[in-house]
Amino acid sequence: MTTKKYLVFLVVLTCVSICVASASVARAQQPTPTPKINLMPMPASLKFNGDRLAVNDSFKVATRGHSDDRLKAAIARFVKRLEGRTVLTLAPGLATDDQMTQLIVHCDGAGKNVPSVSENESYRIDITDRQAILKAPTVVGAIRGLETVLQLLNADRNGYFFPGVVIEDQPRFPWRGLLIDVARHFQTMETLKRNLDAMAAVKLNVLHWHLTEDQGFRVEVKKYPKLHQLGSDGNYYTHEQIKEIIAYARDRGIRVVPEFDIPGHSTSWLVGYPELGSAPGPYTIERRPGIFEPALDPSREEVYKFLEGFLSEMAALFPDEYLHIGGDENEGKQWDRNPAIQAFMKEKGIKDNHGLQAYFNTRLLKILQKNGKKMIGWDEILQPELPKDIVIHSWRGTAALAEAARKGYDGILSNGYYIDLIQPASHHYASDPLPVDSTLTPAEAKHVLGGEATMWAEWVTPETIDSRIWPRTAAIAERLWSQRTVSDVDDMYRRLAILSLQLEELGLMHKRNQDMMLRRLARHEDIGPLKTLVSLVEPVKEYRRYQMRPQTMLSPLTGVVDAATPDADGARRFAWMVKEFLDDAPRYQLYRAELVQMLSEWQESGAALGPMIDRSPALKEIKPLTKGLSELGDIGLEAISYLKLGQPPTREWREASTSKLDEAAKPYAALEFMVVPAVKQLMLAAVELGQPRRTTPSM
Amino acid sequence: MTTKKYLVFLVVLTCVSICVASASVARAQQPTPTPKINLMPMPASLKFNGDRLAVNDSFKVATRGHSDDRLKAAIARFVKRLEGRTVLTLAPGLATDDQMTQLIVHCDGAGKNVPSVSENESYRIDITDRQAILKAPTVVGAIRGLETVLQLLNADRNGYFFPGVVIEDQPRFPWRGLLIDVARHFQTMETLKRNLDAMAAVKLNVLHWHLTEDQGFRVEVKKYPKLHQLGSDGNYYTHEQIKEIIAYARDRGIRVVPEFDIPGHSTSWLVGYPELGSAPGPYTIERRPGIFEPALDPSREEVYKFLEGFLSEMAALFPDEYLHIGGDENEGKQWDRNPAIQAFMKEKGIKDNHGLQAYFNTRLLKILQKNGKKMIGWDEILQPELPKDIVIHSWRGTAALAEAARKGYDGILSNGYYIDLIQPASHHYASDPLPVDSTLTPAEAKHVLGGEATMWAEWVTPETIDSRIWPRTAAIAERLWSQRTVSDVDDMYRRLAILSLQLEELGLMHKRNQDMMLRRLARHEDIGPLKTLVSLVEPVKEYRRYQMRPQTMLSPLTGVVDAATPDADGARRFAWMVKEFLDDAPRYQLYRAELVQMLSEWQESGAALGPMIDRSPALKEIKPLTKGLSELGDIGLEAISYLKLGQPPTREWREASTSKLDEAAKPYAALEFMVVPAVKQLMLAAVELGQPRRTTPSM
Repeated sequence: MTTKKYLVFLVVLTCVSICVASASVARAQQPTPTPKINLMPMPASLKFNGDRLAVNDSFKVATRGHSDDRLKAAIARFVKRLEGRTVLTLAPGLATDDQMTQLIVHCDGAGKNVPSVSENESYRIDITDRQAILKAPTVVGAIRGLETVLQLLNADRNGYFFPGVVIEDQPRFPWRGLLIDVARHFQTMETLKRNLDAMAAVKLNVLHWHLTEDQGFRVEVKKYPKLHQLGSDGNYYTHEQIKEIIAYARDRGIRVVPEFDIPGHSTSWLVGYPELGSAPGPYTIERRPGIFEPALDPSREEVYKFLEGFLSEMAALFPDEYLHIGGDENEGKQWDRNPAIQAFMKEKGIKDNHGLQAYFNTRLLKILQKNGKKMIGWDEILQPELPKDIVIHSWRGTAALAEAARKGYDGILSNGYYIDLIQPASHHYASDPLPVDSTLTPAEAKHVLGGEATMWAEWVTPETIDSRIWPRTAAIAERLWSQRTVSDVDDMYRRLAILSLQLEELGLMHKRNQDMMLRRLARHEDIGPLKTLVSLVEPVKEYRRYQMRPQTMLSPLTGVVDAATPDADGARRFAWMVKEFLDDAPRYQLYRAELVQMLSEWQESGAALGPMIDRSPALKEIKPLTKGLSELGDIGLEAISYLKLGQPPTREWREASTSKLDEAAKPYAALEFMVVPAVKQLMLAAVELGQPRRTTPSM
Repeated sequence: MTTKKYLVFLVVLTCVSICVASASVARAQQPTPTPKINLMPMPASLKFNGDRLAVNDSFKVATRGHSDDRLKAAIARFVKRLEGRTVLTLAPGLATDDQMTQLIVHCDGAGKNVPSVSENESYRIDITDRQAILKAPTVVGAIRGLETVLQLLNADRNGYFFPGVVIEDQPRFPWRGLLIDVARHFQTMETLKRNLDAMAAVKLNVLHWHLTEDQGFRVEVKKYPKLHQLGSDGNYYTHEQIKEIIAYARDRGIRVVPEFDIPGHSTSWLVGYPELGSAPGPYTIERRPGIFEPALDPSREEVYKFLEGFLSEMAALFPDEYLHIGGDENEGKQWDRNPAIQAFMKEKGIKDNHGLQAYFNTRLLKILQKNGKKMIGWDEILQPELPKDIVIHSWRGTAALAEAARKGYDGILSNGYYIDLIQPASHHYASDPLPVDSTLTPAEAKHVLGGEATMWAEWVTPETIDSRIWPRTAAIAERLWSQRTVSDVDDMYRRLAILSLQLEELGLMHKRNQDMMLRRLARHEDIGPLKTLVSLVEPVKEYRRYQMRPQTMLSPLTGVVDAATPDADGARRFAWMVKEFLDDAPRYQLYRAELVQMLSEWQESGAALGPMIDRSPALKEIKPLTKGLSELGDIGLEAISYLKLGQPPTREWREASTSKLDEAAKPYAALEFMVVPAVKQLMLAAVELGQPRRTTPSM
């Protein structure tokens, strides 16, 4: 029984195949089992028809209706991935559309030439024993559908196949983005490309490219070359590279929205052009994280002239209809101290810094309009003076977004999607741009265009960024694509684990880099005990990392905290087993063997880490965690032992354990154990043995 | 005793620190232990002085003497890697040269502007408690020395440090290359760059870029654009990208020698320009591996005119003084069948195809000379007509090389360095361009310039190429850099394991891609049993892969054979333990527990692979291996059991085991068990129990 349940458990957590869980059969009470849906994001409608389309080495794809290079390239990528998974050599190129062709991609037209927020991304898939037909009004719709087809791939001992299915799908929100901050830490072309591939895999459609910051200016600017020459440490994208990324994104139906964050967040601009600043300078590239004073001077015409030159170059480079001007977190301290700016405000009748920034934005808007661009900016730009065709990007939340919508402004949500803050996927999954209790009218709700996950890059390098973005961002992608009612967290995690493996074929490093980082830290091939620890801890949440373990933008991000990830898998597995074990009271048998094994491994790993740390000074900072690891193992094993015997522990044990748990709950090296609550549950269950039982669980 | 020895064993195989093995202490009979040398390649001379230079966050580097951008960039990369390993934040940029600066890099001059075979690569390192001084006559020498310094980094519970040492070092051979065939399978820029980094780490100094083949033409040619447009499937390097690679290589003191293989191996040229061929065409890009008939027509002036245009463009693009014209494996079948060519030979008095190719090469040489290039080509180009300043690249062997040297030709060796043939590192390590039994005079021996590892790319993609090149190529690098007397195979493997981990910090994927590939094959996170199997098998050697498991250049290289690697680590570990166990006769105790555990794991994995294969049809081809895995486990365990009891097995058992071992020795899915000989040793030892003992091993 235990073994069988353990298998079911493995299936629930990580099963990749469309598996038939006996539980779901029982629930559905059907004679034939219903396959599980392994798609992410979940489509708007799906119906299995019991058919099965075999995938073998005669598998061919043909197009019907419209075809173009972008579609052909997308099909070629599809075939390549299908071959990679199945190790089948398929015929290259497209087949002719006939009865023998297994997949027909039927496009009505090309869609928008430049990817657009108004693109029709819908598609329909019909799979029977004989053929799969993917139909879409646009090439982008077909690209979305091809990802769904690949996710449908399944296998059993008879071979690979696509299950018979009818899917009709379209996104809930038209703006589904990922912000990548390449300013605080530069990201290579390769990193951006593989992340674009991953975005396409989960149907995200906007790369929000955060290109400038206090800590770096990352675009070549031909008109003002000192911007990138002095503001980037040599790490910037040339015009050619930017075009390459835009083309790569377009090929995958993804828009590229650049952000140039002004008037604040602009230290790196001022290194080369201090005359744009509101204080005389000189300026150097900022190396710390945080909010800084430097801001462009909104009182000087030369600044607008500069921006006109700069933005016209950027507007020509980036084809998207939107351009993000940032506008956030400018506290105006430089403005307060600058007599000329103060005089300017007086002269113009501008009451405060808020008003001054509104004046700046109004000027900026005119420049953008002249260059054919719509403005998007953070919450702070929302000012009555600004016209209704700007987009509000809300870091504040759905209330701010709703308020903007009521005023007639389009908006997108990032509050709740700050993936740099190391929250679990479930946290982001719960954040909805249009929550169920929204009071917006349907017309107002249309102004809520979607949202964006934000990969702020204070603490990520090309080596670690994938593990900060993926797989969690897929949960956000689902929130933005799928219906609000798709909200089962357990099922989301089940599908996330499947997707996570699939992302690897696109070159994503979120899984494979961890072992490498641990090997470097351990200076050894054998990382077992360290891996055990890392599977149970997570980096501290929100902004506590810097407080606990200050570093600069030039520091190596190669520590244990960098190797650790959100949603620590060992901790999630442990919590799941503890729940099942305790629910099995008073037998306490379910998962007992597995829990004992896991907890013993903690004890052993805790002991084995000592010599490892002695050999690797970079591990010294986790020394306090090794004690915690052993003690968590001790408490867990002792609690299980009490529960097994039905014998309550002593008060001394309870007190000692409580104090050890309190100690283990403390973060060290900016890492915290995620298993403390589950171990505490075990402890409390043991303690309760000595108290009158309130209810006897039914068997 | 067992445990202690096991630790020593781990240390021997994978220890990353400079460890003090008790065995070596005993041997040396010194009061203080001598640290092990963990360098690869081994320097010409090294002496530890017992000092210790601490590396902490005040560590700084300064230059003395000559400095330039290349040196500064090399130091910046050095510091970045040092930071990555130690997780220390070091001060950016260079320090001033003073008493407090821990590392002084003292260069006498820039060296050659274009990396050259005559570059002085020597350096000297002096490390004391107070300071490390790296002194070199050229920047390239300093770059070589910086790699040595990094390899010296060590640690203990007191922190990171460089051991006190005096090293004087220079290469044995001036030409130490890696050929990367980007024609049969295209390799990305990223792949080339990380491999250049790895080359620099082991002091290789030539990237031999095999750019054209029957299966692909990979260079943009502005004069004849149909070459890359029709010969590459769109996979070629632009001039800009080639310049980028050359600059990247130069930064690391690495030459880039391009190869354009003619007159044979030229199908891809003829797709766009069939008029160059010796048969009318039309031609299509070759997709199969092998030797093919298409060859340029050496009888037509238009061909030389074309080559003049082509080679002048290439000569301008590639700054190296050598240009490789291939010249190998042209069987001349097209020539035999072409009446015009036959008439031409008659007219010119050319006797055979050999003579015709010599004529072709003579013409080619003139074009190269006109463009200021020296010719290098494979053995076949060696013809009395050719002047002495060409270089012979020998795939045939040291005898051919010696013969060329006696005639006054420079030569390099690749025979023995064909890393595509999946031989163990020890095989390549034994191959010496100037073997100990060489009869060349010192003057003749000078013509032997060195050698090149050849990564022929029939069966490698960017996903797998690193695991085919590394870490084995480091053994070849050592053969070419270090003295001939550096030849201890066990110590080579020990240092290779250390280096292998260090290569990962440069982005090399040789280790981390295997798990990913197994996850994709298994369609599951849990790959334990598959990993066990893969650690014991290797792809079949030499050219048997294609015979056993034919694929084309368009096939997916994502099978188990692609995930498996040369020098299978589990097999090597097992063989080592079996040797120690049998040497421990008649106690048979050493490693017994470990062997029993390992063999039991084989049995379990063999059983567990069944359901895994049922779920993943791509694994079906390894089904016969799972039976072999279980049976190898059985035989090994049974043999150990007999040995333990001192009781001989029955004849039936011996016969059954022998037949099982014969079966397990057969390759399947182009994979073969590397543990059969060691299991056989166990079996035979058990069988011998029943025979009169010849000698009693002393304890």
